[in-house]
Amino acid sequence: MERVKPRTLAGFMELLPERQQLMEKMMEKLRESYSLYGFTPLDTPIIEASEVLLAKGGGETEKQIYRFLKGDTDLSMRFDLTVPLAKYVAMHHGTLTFPFRRFQIGKVYRGERTQRGRFREFYQADIDIIGDGTLEPVNEAEIPSIIYKTFTSLGLRRFKIKVNNRMLLGGFLEYAGVSDMAQIVMREIDKLDKQGRDKTLANLSEACGAEAAEKILGFIEITGSAGEKIDAISRYSGCNERFDAGYESLRALVGYLADFGVPEEQFELDFAIARGLDYYTGTVYETILTDHPEIGSICSGGRYDNLAEYYTDRALPGVGISIGLTRLFYVLESEGYLNDEIIAAPADALVIPMTDDLGFAIKVATAIRSAGVRASIYFEKKKFKAKIGYADKLGIPYAVFIGEDEISSGTITVKRLATGEQWSAEPEVAAVRIAEELAPRRTAAPIRDGE
Amino acid sequence: MERVKPRTLAGFMELLPERQQLMEKMMEKLRESYSLYGFTPLDTPIIEASEVLLAKGGGETEKQIYRFLKGDTDLSMRFDLTVPLAKYVAMHHGTLTFPFRRFQIGKVYRGERTQRGRFREFYQADIDIIGDGTLEPVNEAEIPSIIYKTFTSLGLRRFKIKVNNRMLLGGFLEYAGVSDMAQIVMREIDKLDKQGRDKTLANLSEACGAEAAEKILGFIEITGSAGEKIDAISRYSGCNERFDAGYESLRALVGYLADFGVPEEQFELDFAIARGLDYYTGTVYETILTDHPEIGSICSGGRYDNLAEYYTDRALPGVGISIGLTRLFYVLESEGYLNDEIIAAPADALVIPMTDDLGFAIKVATAIRSAGVRASIYFEKKKFKAKIGYADKLGIPYAVFIGEDEISSGTITVKRLATGEQWSAEPEVAAVRIAEELAPRRTAAPIRDGE
Repeated sequence: MERVKPRTLAGFMELLPERQQLMEKMMEKLRESYSLYGFTPLDTPIIEASEVLLAKGGGETEKQIYRFLKGDTDLSMRFDLTVPLAKYVAMHHGTLTFPFRRFQIGKVYRGERTQRGRFREFYQADIDIIGDGTLEPVNEAEIPSIIYKTFTSLGLRRFKIKVNNRMLLGGFLEYAGVSDMAQIVMREIDKLDKQGRDKTLANLSEACGAEAAEKILGFIEITGSAGEKIDAISRYSGCNERFDAGYESLRALVGYLADFGVPEEQFELDFAIARGLDYYTGTVYETILTDHPEIGSICSGGRYDNLAEYYTDRALPGVGISIGLTRLFYVLESEGYLNDEIIAAPADALVIPMTDDLGFAIKVATAIRSAGVRASIYFEKKKFKAKIGYADKLGIPYAVFIGEDEISSGTITVKRLATGEQWSAEPEVAAVRIAEELAPRRTAAPIRDGE
Repeated sequence: MERVKPRTLAGFMELLPERQQLMEKMMEKLRESYSLYGFTPLDTPIIEASEVLLAKGGGETEKQIYRFLKGDTDLSMRFDLTVPLAKYVAMHHGTLTFPFRRFQIGKVYRGERTQRGRFREFYQADIDIIGDGTLEPVNEAEIPSIIYKTFTSLGLRRFKIKVNNRMLLGGFLEYAGVSDMAQIVMREIDKLDKQGRDKTLANLSEACGAEAAEKILGFIEITGSAGEKIDAISRYSGCNERFDAGYESLRALVGYLADFGVPEEQFELDFAIARGLDYYTGTVYETILTDHPEIGSICSGGRYDNLAEYYTDRALPGVGISIGLTRLFYVLESEGYLNDEIIAAPADALVIPMTDDLGFAIKVATAIRSAGVRASIYFEKKKFKAKIGYADKLGIPYAVFIGEDEISSGTITVKRLATGEQWSAEPEVAAVRIAEELAPRRTAAPIRDGE
């Protein structure tokens, strides 16, 4: 038979079993955290009619889209979870209850140039709160709390949630008399970290004059805690409506942080965050790993005014954030953040029959499973060394030997492979002990960070 | 702005939030059940190189495949989870430990003619046990136990697991002297239920003579419990090697059923099950809803000899089953099996601020969430009726009112909306009580069947 070399496409993540277990654990934690904040899970198709998915049209991403004909139908694969959400909310507007809070964890597709850490198929994990006509700005104040809870539950400790407000920034540029150059100015601000202060000042000066440039840099470089920054910028209050609206929103957000359980040291007001020019209209969010700021934001989003303007004339304002889960997993693995204490084995216990009579071994596995302990039976006819080697290689923590003695006594012998410790008990009792001993490793977070 | 009518493609399931919650619960139960039996989760790409995915080539399904060019690359979307598994195991053969037990729940794509209950994008939920070179037949005996546990954990009660063995059937046809007509004979046997005995007998007689036809029908129509059937067919023992191998395998499987915890009344030996001619080589499985046999099998599979012959010359025998989850969900919904007792609301409690001071309301929500209770805060400035109506419409079971009294006393008032019952407590205490009261509905199975 002619054989085809098996391979996986470049840019498509496919994990080995132990890694996949950690990825699953991460997704489970995300589902839990998002649910805790009252978001309901959604699942939309990966394929949509191109006419619908690309209603917005144009744009740089269009080249990246997986688009094809099936029969006469022009189809596209989703490139984010926001456009399908817009479609869903517009379609089901009459049935849904607003504010509509949904989360979705799903694969999206972008035919980007493949390179290390860039994926063409990747998971996004999004939440959005959508209002019908209006949505109170205080909803924006809740997002840092969700980010904090989510990453903490994953086991991350050293991260920082950065927040700005588009109205504040836009209002300030208006006040500085450079509204018409907002696009250029924001591009320069975005590059501040990379190109340094001198270069930024020079570029800004060239674009809008030395005075405005100094003013802008002075504003975004204000230092201090969130509270101190709020105090510092209060002197611009009243300069224009836009600034004031942004200021009030940020002030409320900072004021509610403690009530939302967000520690001050993991939060930062960063007046330099712009996050694209068109879409966001209020609070914007970024999240960075304190020890790896070079990776960029691992969770971003913001407030927008119109989720679904391409589908409906109803105003659907919202606020949302997105985690690029596949990339985050890749980064966490590369940087050594994954928690090896997690049980990545396919089973907690391996039942090893030592005789040809399998009945009791099967009974034991059934009893162990009934107690919620994950169990495999090693049925292959191999030497003892191979049997125990199977548990070792897979990292299965317990081996349960079933020989003549066990069959006649109804008692099993359990070996904890890491320590060699061995003990005997009735199957049901043994299962409870195994479950208890494993509990700390079962509830461990998938990420280990700075402990 | 020109607007596009939002729509979802025909054949693509997209559920409303309450239904999606039930679907999520089903997937959670599947993951739990499969894990309990020592299967490790896998996640493979939805897109593969066509050359790899279609290595087997030909076949009726090829027309249904979503295949397209992206740049110069010929891509296809997976149409099942078995071919990607074959690729994965062949690729990672050196790294994996065998027997390799994996489960995968993922979307697959088939461009079938759309009709009620048929989907083009649908979830499959598969498990497979893959051996390296050999795999002990007793692995096949474990599968009914997995099917039983899985459907029971979903809440199904009235289902039956049907088992046959391809060697037994093939061996019997050999014994009946009709091996060369096996294909025709099996097709007729498959139609027995639909076309009735007389028609089948007539067709079989025409194909292979009256004597053989009677013999075959006599064999597959043997009645009785599994044990009785095993006894009844023991008289053919020794007729040929193939029959004997199948007989021994089935006998062992039936013998171990009780040890595996499978009740006799939910199990049936069915000598008429063939399940395709080429792929399966040993035990084959089907599962039917007792009250809806017309729906066909909801979980099927079998033993095969070569998982990955198109990718490797290594023999990789295995056994696996697959649940067509999207179709199953559709059927369960249509037939009224979904459990409405399940909390399908996005939150367990809605915190409703009655004043402009939101701090305490936010604190309360944070406290409730810390206790694992899912909570939303209603931030919109609406009338009281609209606020409480929000909880009602979404089916949120508890409303927590935060007015002046609550803020000054630090005690909250909780209303159980279904009964109107109302009580006051400190936030942490209230959260524990809510969690306790909701526990039965939280742990309820997603399916309600015959209770």
